[in-house]
Amino acid sequence: MASVSSSSSSAAAASSTDSACAKIIDGKLVAKQIREEIAVEIAKMKDAIGIVPGLAVILVGSRKDSQTYVRNKKKACEAVGIKSFEVNLPEDSSEDEVLKHIATFNSDPSVHGILVQLPLPHHMNDENILNAVSIEKDVDGFHPLNIGRLAMQGRDPFFVPCTPKGCMELLHRYGVEIKGKRAVVIGRSNIVGMPAALLLQKANATVSIVHSNTKKPEEITRQADIVIAAVGVANLVRGSWIKPGAAIIDVGINPVDDPESPRGYRLVGDVCYEEASKIAGLITPVPGGVGPMTIAMLLANTVESAKRIHKFK
Amino acid sequence: MASVSSSSSSAAAASSTDSACAKIIDGKLVAKQIREEIAVEIAKMKDAIGIVPGLAVILVGSRKDSQTYVRNKKKACEAVGIKSFEVNLPEDSSEDEVLKHIATFNSDPSVHGILVQLPLPHHMNDENILNAVSIEKDVDGFHPLNIGRLAMQGRDPFFVPCTPKGCMELLHRYGVEIKGKRAVVIGRSNIVGMPAALLLQKANATVSIVHSNTKKPEEITRQADIVIAAVGVANLVRGSWIKPGAAIIDVGINPVDDPESPRGYRLVGDVCYEEASKIAGLITPVPGGVGPMTIAMLLANTVESAKRIHKFK
Repeated sequence: MASVSSSSSSAAAASSTDSACAKIIDGKLVAKQIREEIAVEIAKMKDAIGIVPGLAVILVGSRKDSQTYVRNKKKACEAVGIKSFEVNLPEDSSEDEVLKHIATFNSDPSVHGILVQLPLPHHMNDENILNAVSIEKDVDGFHPLNIGRLAMQGRDPFFVPCTPKGCMELLHRYGVEIKGKRAVVIGRSNIVGMPAALLLQKANATVSIVHSNTKKPEEITRQADIVIAAVGVANLVRGSWIKPGAAIIDVGINPVDDPESPRGYRLVGDVCYEEASKIAGLITPVPGGVGPMTIAMLLANTVESAKRIHKFK
Repeated sequence: MASVSSSSSSAAAASSTDSACAKIIDGKLVAKQIREEIAVEIAKMKDAIGIVPGLAVILVGSRKDSQTYVRNKKKACEAVGIKSFEVNLPEDSSEDEVLKHIATFNSDPSVHGILVQLPLPHHMNDENILNAVSIEKDVDGFHPLNIGRLAMQGRDPFFVPCTPKGCMELLHRYGVEIKGKRAVVIGRSNIVGMPAALLLQKANATVSIVHSNTKKPEEITRQADIVIAAVGVANLVRGSWIKPGAAIIDVGINPVDDPESPRGYRLVGDVCYEEASKIAGLITPVPGGVGPMTIAMLLANTVESAKRIHKFK
């Protein structure tokens, strides 16, 4: 026994010098815990006031990936006790038809969250459609009024966009201190990078946003205690970009060719995991990091909405 | 003559080694130019469609400083040809009375901008009152919907808040390139720091926001090609914080004791001008830098609003 234990500890020591040493942030596990917590909350709410949260999803067209997302959202809702509403419209529907369904859900008291699956067909104006969703039911949190309230001190948004909310939740649950830390967000999209930067800023980090016009992005990133990468470029962030011990949240999910995979490709993040995991203190894997958090946060937003509408604490 | 010219050029050479070398950004002059441009635009608009822009100001109470601001705004409006509307309400007015006047101005077609002078008396809810101003007439640009549109890619705000807009205008008029540059904003208030950061970001700078929780703010600031200081702390930014050649926009206006001044105090910025002007490439003085730009931008927003409402290009 003694010799086995000794050889196993020396193996661990060897591996820590030349291979991964960062703690892995297990998004799959955290998302599962959150879904369980949500199921408990929903059961309590149902017992107390007889209300079940409801989420409506509007899908236009028949894109395979959108259908998969919508199906997964529906399954996730059912698993925690959220009632799903679904509208499937043909690709050639008019904007008015979509707006009509939004109006119906806006006034339906059993619906607490409304989600329009993106992308919409090209003949539709995304902005018109997204702005039609009642601000009280905009569980995606993409409405500019929501974003404005997120940016402002002393104001709170109705909903925090799901993916950035998931990033913050991972940092919190892994005990990463944010206040006073340097944070770099790579990418400035309306749905991830920009709101993530606003959230870090609201949590009192010193935030810099790196984007395609940034010169020497590696120099700024190397100053960061916290990095959120959401730019959609496979393996952009190399080991040399990372400050030793930093917390790395990788939002990217990029397919790269892989002849050894049965599908011919595999998914990698915006961060070169192999290099980064040797330098970072904590890191999310891809897949299994931020990915599972997005739907969990959508469920959380829907429950939050139902609680707010029904004044249930 | 030759000897005079030679002695004056050697004086200049001497002064550039041991005293100010930064180019001074003359906000007073730029504001004057802008007011002249606005007067020309207004005259054109009046000739073409018979419309004169109108700005309504609501003042509650009798604070001396607020009265001075409102009087200055009125004078500035008159000088360029904007029609002024003014409501003075007693300190003990109700929120409803203020809201009633806002509603009247919202529906008055001769009013293109509405401004509620802050601070409001303590018994009023600022948020309720500011949110009541029609988004199309919110020339202050403080509405969260406006801020959200400012933050989002692919969206434009109805109005850019006046002081940050003035900062950007000074950078533009002095030929400071923004795209791809490092910018640091010191301070994150809803009315200056935060929207200034969003504007620099929209102009493709790489932006970092420094605030009270930031550790070693001098290190980050020293990386910046552009600094906007809007924190309200006299002489916070020292020469050692500044990258040689950087453009410095100082929004602070802080009174400091000065027994030699007849008033017993003088006004200084957030930047230690004496030190910074030796290192920076361009710098705004205090007073005479950003200060005069705020009212000029308010006039610009009012004209912009009238042009938009009347579809005049």
